Amino acid sequence: MLTLADFVADVRARVDAALDELIPGADISPTRLHEAIRWSVFAGGKRVRPAIVFAVGETFGASRTDLGRTAAAVEMIHTYSLIHDDLPAMDDDDLRRGRATSHRQFDEATAILAGDVLQTLAFKAIATDEVLSPEKRLKLISLMADAAGTPSGMVAGQQLDLDAEGETLSIAALEKIHRQKTGALITASAVAGAIIGEAEEAELVAIRTFAEKLGLLFQITDDLLDVTQGTAALGKTAGKDAAAAKATYPGHYGVEKSHELATQICTEAGAELAALPRDTSLLRGLAEMIAQRKS
Amino acid sequence: MLTLADFVADVRARVDAALDELIPGADISPTRLHEAIRWSVFAGGKRVRPAIVFAVGETFGASRTDLGRTAAAVEMIHTYSLIHDDLPAMDDDDLRRGRATSHRQFDEATAILAGDVLQTLAFKAIATDEVLSPEKRLKLISLMADAAGTPSGMVAGQQLDLDAEGETLSIAALEKIHRQKTGALITASAVAGAIIGEAEEAELVAIRTFAEKLGLLFQITDDLLDVTQGTAALGKTAGKDAAAAKATYPGHYGVEKSHELATQICTEAGAELAALPRDTSLLRGLAEMIAQRKS
Repeated sequence: MLTLADFVADVRARVDAALDELIPGADISPTRLHEAIRWSVFAGGKRVRPAIVFAVGETFGASRTDLGRTAAAVEMIHTYSLIHDDLPAMDDDDLRRGRATSHRQFDEATAILAGDVLQTLAFKAIATDEVLSPEKRLKLISLMADAAGTPSGMVAGQQLDLDAEGETLSIAALEKIHRQKTGALITASAVAGAIIGEAEEAELVAIRTFAEKLGLLFQITDDLLDVTQGTAALGKTAGKDAAAAKATYPGHYGVEKSHELATQICTEAGAELAALPRDTSLLRGLAEMIAQRKS
Repeated sequence: MLTLADFVADVRARVDAALDELIPGADISPTRLHEAIRWSVFAGGKRVRPAIVFAVGETFGASRTDLGRTAAAVEMIHTYSLIHDDLPAMDDDDLRRGRATSHRQFDEATAILAGDVLQTLAFKAIATDEVLSPEKRLKLISLMADAAGTPSGMVAGQQLDLDAEGETLSIAALEKIHRQKTGALITASAVAGAIIGEAEEAELVAIRTFAEKLGLLFQITDDLLDVTQGTAALGKTAGKDAAAAKATYPGHYGVEKSHELATQICTEAGAELAALPRDTSLLRGLAEMIAQRKS
């Protein structure tokens, strides 16, 4: 039987192969730009969003061939956002995925351009995905644009986060920011899998709610890891939230209660799946994995 | 009879209306992000690329309704590139389109996000353009992604420009950079109009060559204006090329010879149109207008 670990390893291999095909080689001009893109894309990311695309897609019977490009596109959008978030004018971070951030390894201008063009490549990847019908491709592009954009997507969330700097946020205000900044793309990953797998309208609603819980779970565990793990284990600077006096789940509820909350959200996410007349073991496994992640 | 001035004014009104509809209002959260986008988009840009989309599209019989969204999308991609090019890590400019650049008026982080999300909105605008068939929309998205991206589009050209900083470039090397940095999106604007107007394959080839000449003409006149006009007339810092010791047409050929070259390229562009069994007076007029532009 295919274990969850096998599934995750298979996703990684497929996504990495798709990314390698979609991103120009480091030997192609302008080489510095393509080196920079590959530096960030192939830095050992966990490929959580592609795993969600694949897990939801397979739950609805989509083939892995049909899911590959879209999963790679989501990872490109995610990576572009990391490169730009790490810039000196934004979070000013030196370490990401265990290696120097793009602007530290290359330079700021190259990092800006690498992020810019990763977004372009993501939309191009979906637009030219011949295995999907034109209608599906357009739905996916529109979905990803909303999730990555404004007024309720990732960039809007990033702006809200910037605007709130120095302010003490309530957990409700914090959740709104996270729902846009990280939740929107996680939810879109799940909905993309459901669109490719041609889920029914009612199933789409259930998957969307499941994914929103997953996004929240991801954020709580992210906050917990920032407190409980070291920089080496995370591959990014640990303890940043406390240093920036950011509102976090462990900061608000304490570590133990936050763990309990994570367990509760994971149970709620699982409950959303009960209504689906499908084998949802893969999705339940994925939620468990996120709840118990160590990095 | 519709004059060229009427046509350009009509394009501006249509494109501005489309942009206003496509970009969230400055009263919608996050307001700072939407204010910043609108600051740069509605700064009195000349709308050269939308005019090219409309002029080529109408030459092939496309309706203005069919052309509006794509023209607005091109302008959004162009404006995103201006916002990012002006950043301190790139050209570090204070003035654009006669007003403060985005990072000067707002802040650097907001300017990065405003550029990022303008790109997202551009692809979304085309993907959801219900007046065009799904196949046309996908062709346009792919075309724009290639023109804005890498290895032969705008961002690649910007990277080549960065890589060449401090080097003395030949006119051939300079032309290669311009062909990507500004030429690619100008050419794509023309090709987009031809796709929407369902031009024949041979006509597409002629239009592409015409547009490449137009891009070159645009660059020569841009270089000339940088030498001959003041900052107030340009709405951006004048004399920057000389200050940066950049290779330019007037720098290489002198001002008078560069004017002659512009006239010659304009004639060549017109000659490309001779093969088209269409009324090409609008396109000839547009080329003339670019050749004689004063800002």
